[in-house]
Amino acid sequence: MTKHVAVLTSGGDAPGMNACIRAIVLSCERAGYRVSGFLRGYNGLLEPDRITLTAERMHNLIQQGGTILHSARCERFCEEDGLKLAARHLNEAEVDTLIVIGGDGSFHGAHALKAHWQGQIIGLPGTIDNDVDGTDATIGYYTAIETAVNSIDKVRDTADAFDRVFVVEVMGRHAGFLGLSAALASASDFVIVPELFSEAQATLAQIRQQIMQRQQRRGPVSYVIVLSEHVWPGGVTRLCEEVSDITGLEARPVTLGHVQRGGSPVSQDRILAVKLGTHAVSLVGKDVTDIMVGISSGAVVNVPLQTTWQKQKTLGEDARATALCLMNQRYQD
Amino acid sequence: MTKHVAVLTSGGDAPGMNACIRAIVLSCERAGYRVSGFLRGYNGLLEPDRITLTAERMHNLIQQGGTILHSARCERFCEEDGLKLAARHLNEAEVDTLIVIGGDGSFHGAHALKAHWQGQIIGLPGTIDNDVDGTDATIGYYTAIETAVNSIDKVRDTADAFDRVFVVEVMGRHAGFLGLSAALASASDFVIVPELFSEAQATLAQIRQQIMQRQQRRGPVSYVIVLSEHVWPGGVTRLCEEVSDITGLEARPVTLGHVQRGGSPVSQDRILAVKLGTHAVSLVGKDVTDIMVGISSGAVVNVPLQTTWQKQKTLGEDARATALCLMNQRYQD
Amino acid sequence: MTKHVAVLTSGGDAPGMNACIRAIVLSCERAGYRVSGFLRGYNGLLEPDRITLTAERMHNLIQQGGTILHSARCERFCEEDGLKLAARHLNEAEVDTLIVIGGDGSFHGAHALKAHWQGQIIGLPGTIDNDVDGTDATIGYYTAIETAVNSIDKVRDTADAFDRVFVVEVMGRHAGFLGLSAALASASDFVIVPELFSEAQATLAQIRQQIMQRQQRRGPVSYVIVLSEHVWPGGVTRLCEEVSDITGLEARPVTLGHVQRGGSPVSQDRILAVKLGTHAVSLVGKDVTDIMVGISSGAVVNVPLQTTWQKQKTLGEDARATALCLMNQRYQD
Amino acid sequence: MTKHVAVLTSGGDAPGMNACIRAIVLSCERAGYRVSGFLRGYNGLLEPDRITLTAERMHNLIQQGGTILHSARCERFCEEDGLKLAARHLNEAEVDTLIVIGGDGSFHGAHALKAHWQGQIIGLPGTIDNDVDGTDATIGYYTAIETAVNSIDKVRDTADAFDRVFVVEVMGRHAGFLGLSAALASASDFVIVPELFSEAQATLAQIRQQIMQRQQRRGPVSYVIVLSEHVWPGGVTRLCEEVSDITGLEARPVTLGHVQRGGSPVSQDRILAVKLGTHAVSLVGKDVTDIMVGISSGAVVNVPLQTTWQKQKTLGEDARATALCLMNQRYQD
Repeated sequence: MTKHVAVLTSGGDAPGMNACIRAIVLSCERAGYRVSGFLRGYNGLLEPDRITLTAERMHNLIQQGGTILHSARCERFCEEDGLKLAARHLNEAEVDTLIVIGGDGSFHGAHALKAHWQGQIIGLPGTIDNDVDGTDATIGYYTAIETAVNSIDKVRDTADAFDRVFVVEVMGRHAGFLGLSAALASASDFVIVPELFSEAQATLAQIRQQIMQRQQRRGPVSYVIVLSEHVWPGGVTRLCEEVSDITGLEARPVTLGHVQRGGSPVSQDRILAVKLGTHAVSLVGKDVTDIMVGISSGAVVNVPLQTTWQKQKTLGEDARATALCLMNQRYQD
Repeated sequence: MTKHVAVLTSGGDAPGMNACIRAIVLSCERAGYRVSGFLRGYNGLLEPDRITLTAERMHNLIQQGGTILHSARCERFCEEDGLKLAARHLNEAEVDTLIVIGGDGSFHGAHALKAHWQGQIIGLPGTIDNDVDGTDATIGYYTAIETAVNSIDKVRDTADAFDRVFVVEVMGRHAGFLGLSAALASASDFVIVPELFSEAQATLAQIRQQIMQRQQRRGPVSYVIVLSEHVWPGGVTRLCEEVSDITGLEARPVTLGHVQRGGSPVSQDRILAVKLGTHAVSLVGKDVTDIMVGISSGAVVNVPLQTTWQKQKTLGEDARATALCLMNQRYQD
Repeated sequence: MTKHVAVLTSGGDAPGMNACIRAIVLSCERAGYRVSGFLRGYNGLLEPDRITLTAERMHNLIQQGGTILHSARCERFCEEDGLKLAARHLNEAEVDTLIVIGGDGSFHGAHALKAHWQGQIIGLPGTIDNDVDGTDATIGYYTAIETAVNSIDKVRDTADAFDRVFVVEVMGRHAGFLGLSAALASASDFVIVPELFSEAQATLAQIRQQIMQRQQRRGPVSYVIVLSEHVWPGGVTRLCEEVSDITGLEARPVTLGHVQRGGSPVSQDRILAVKLGTHAVSLVGKDVTDIMVGISSGAVVNVPLQTTWQKQKTLGEDARATALCLMNQRYQD
Repeated sequence: MTKHVAVLTSGGDAPGMNACIRAIVLSCERAGYRVSGFLRGYNGLLEPDRITLTAERMHNLIQQGGTILHSARCERFCEEDGLKLAARHLNEAEVDTLIVIGGDGSFHGAHALKAHWQGQIIGLPGTIDNDVDGTDATIGYYTAIETAVNSIDKVRDTADAFDRVFVVEVMGRHAGFLGLSAALASASDFVIVPELFSEAQATLAQIRQQIMQRQQRRGPVSYVIVLSEHVWPGGVTRLCEEVSDITGLEARPVTLGHVQRGGSPVSQDRILAVKLGTHAVSLVGKDVTDIMVGISSGAVVNVPLQTTWQKQKTLGEDARATALCLMNQRYQD
């Protein structure tokens, strides 16, 4: 009997989610599976609200940001009755495989569902924060870096014109992947991310010393600091005030905000989305469940869903090298 | 004896200032004039800090944001002694013509200088706010619209994904040109600009009614509001709270900030910069001074500097039509 | 009785056609008119192939390139029987107003239709070539300039790296608007457009002299020539050979081609599209027909359809100034 | 005594070469090394033509395409006397380490130099073609994919509007990395790359069958083929003719050409350039030479220079998966 694959997007949206939905639908059609989508994340499982997905609808979707399946928070889903209701709706719809595109929070829910539903559950990492353990990259991460870097490139123009300090706050939730990559690729002068941040006063002293050194060497200077959200006590505005106090220079805040979540995905996110989505469909009916399909050292891998959140993903060798490079930059001029 | 033309950029930087400097330098070289630049706006006239500008240095400059002459505020310049000092330095440097690229504030200064200096003074409009009377467009305005629209396009992706309200604050100082154009080109649902804003409660009621109408017609909706800076009592965050209160929907703020000031100029700004800069040089030595070179109905025009600030530039016929179009959009879906 | 407005897009597609369709549909809905679209240009009138257009469908359309109504050539339409058939189908569908978005070729057809159909006919200029008389700009023109300039900016990187000559062929049909604007905004070294081109040998001599001058002054140089299509005998490849022959330098051709036709419209095209589309709908039922709605000196104007092709649109004052600026650039370094 | 590091860029330029030069210079300054650059690839070693590189000069360089050290072919270098001359100039300049940024052709030269010069030789992979064995990615590859995909996204707009076939020729030299990635990320309908191409008639039959299937299912269709350069007998124009002959549809060629070589590097290329450049400097004075520093499974690795060209780099596991995904797409609608 024909397999029925259902997909949903959950948590914060990320560029490439649509490219992934497209890859899943096209792969299912090729394999001869039925495929449908639940709307607004787990809410679609509870109401239920489900649409049939066809290859027709996928045309010109690879380049669109956001998610045509919509997303939303859903507290109720994680309660016992919510999970049971979802299981009932999945059975009524005769779904064989549920594919959840989202972050570790969404995978928590998917894993919890397993206790109440016998079907196959596969997670695909979709978040701009890249804070999902078990995969080197998440769908949306590359685009968010690009968006942040393009914005910082623009901010630098003004920083240079006015020999002014700018502090640019980027997203990243509790991880520094986005902040570190954006700072590195934008040749920013300083970066403050959770993993490398210890103490405010010490950090301020470091910034001050560096700015002073440069001023002595070449007069007025511009200086761009990349700050990850949720790190600095008092936030980006407070940091600006403190930098002004210790340096006597004007420091202006820029908060990139939700702009980082949208936009047409860059090629790397499109390619990652197609790889992961296609691989997920290749697992349909196989004896694997409660897993996430990720990418590791360029190869597609399956990891148990729990691993994606049980241990906080830390900046790896790769990222430490990145940090080191950035240290170099600090002496750039 | 060879004419000596000096240039400076003042006020907020704007994409295309470098393209304009380039056009001035190349035109001067062709006419056989010497050309130099004063650094950091009027500060360069007081210190003095002047560099020679050569055609060589202009290569690959047309596409760069910011200003290689730097910019900065300069309170002291507008005081009697500041103006006298500037005049003395201009005479010592044997400058025949001073070209000031900036906004109406900068033109104030240029006009004040006239009482103390006999040389020729020409202003060129360079600001992303387009709030200079006597010209249809200012250098940097087109790029700022593009930057804002690209960002709003991204925000809409998330707004649609979450059926959420977003309020995007754009620059514009005390004018709504940037806000209105950005809202129109991004197909935003509502726009709040100084010229069209009267009263907060009435505006909130209008927004509420429109959102309710749409929800009744099609369930969850996304809604994007473009807000000009300095307009809403309490700012963008307060507006979000108020919209949430009256609609019961989540409303998130996005402040584009200084990103709007930088970036490689779009073609229209590059072309405008070349036209105005080239025309300014064609006036060197002619019997015109204390004027701004602007663009009006596609033609380059000279207007007295005072006219650029004496009357607040208002949204013209063109802009009213734009506003009308936007009203249509409000019923878009 | 409710008015029925029909729209079609004809001729080469141009970025902003969708934004214009959207503005028409939203304006019609607001005015309470029915609105539908004929597919594949005039072919849709002959088959007939017509779809109803709703505001729902217009969401997120403003930023899309191409045309959802599709376009195609249609020789048969211009023959007597084709026009009669189209008229019959328009009457059967009870269309009151036909809006044609396209270039002067398409307007020819629209004008010819008038002899056989009593309804109201309105043309809107949509082409990247800006070669429609009676309007300062056409929908798609601004985006094509941007696309060409972004490409030439990239080509210049390689030209500089290799101190090499590049000839970039851009579109424009028989007009030099696109070529001249692209050359100016990209700071290209030379431009060859129909209006300014007389004789090949003289042009080659000019190029040779300029390159030689620069080499004497500063050794190896890069040199970028913008060439309009259909101008050079033998085309861009032949020109490269000839430039190599007279200069002894490598000259490489780049043909931008159809890339110039697509892409998300820049803000200026989106705004123009909204203005013209909205104005067209405001004319529905009024005593005007067989006209094109264009933009002149920033104001929306109505001109008889014939004027759009009867006289070849020439580079105006504006464009001559542009050319003059470019001449300056040729001595840039 | 202070180490002296010299850098040069050779072969085709690639976005990110400047970012790599910057990383090398900043790392050298931090380590206390002297650093200089030879101009125009190996030509700079023969003339000699060498400049001192300072951190000052590196400001705002990370985002620039091309190479400030210029590049050029240099036949003479590979001859005995050329290599000897280069060695003498390197000794006269007291260069300890020579870093060559380029492709396998350039590495050939670097390796040949080893027989005549005792200094340390390090290669860094810089080419848009990604055809260097021993590294997963080359500097410039990611940007070229992005440029190609952005162009194909635009072409698709026109393809859809006219239900037309387009064949887009991309670079890649003799490898299909760029073609395959561009086709995948642009959701193209068919891809022809060296590694997957066997026989023209079979390929044409495949294309024909696919187009016919779609037409039967849904009438007029658009169809985009990505073609790697040097693969199709007669090139892209010939392929278009042949596709037209067998399908009866219009097929238009687009050759992206040198546009793919330039432009501001995307973040991934900037990051790769910083990693490789910084690592190369960390090797200065160590007992390794005649090697290339590459990236493998996310880790920086050193491989003997010969390995980079001795075996043709083939599409790996990764790329085959990519190809498989693309096969899926062919049935997309």
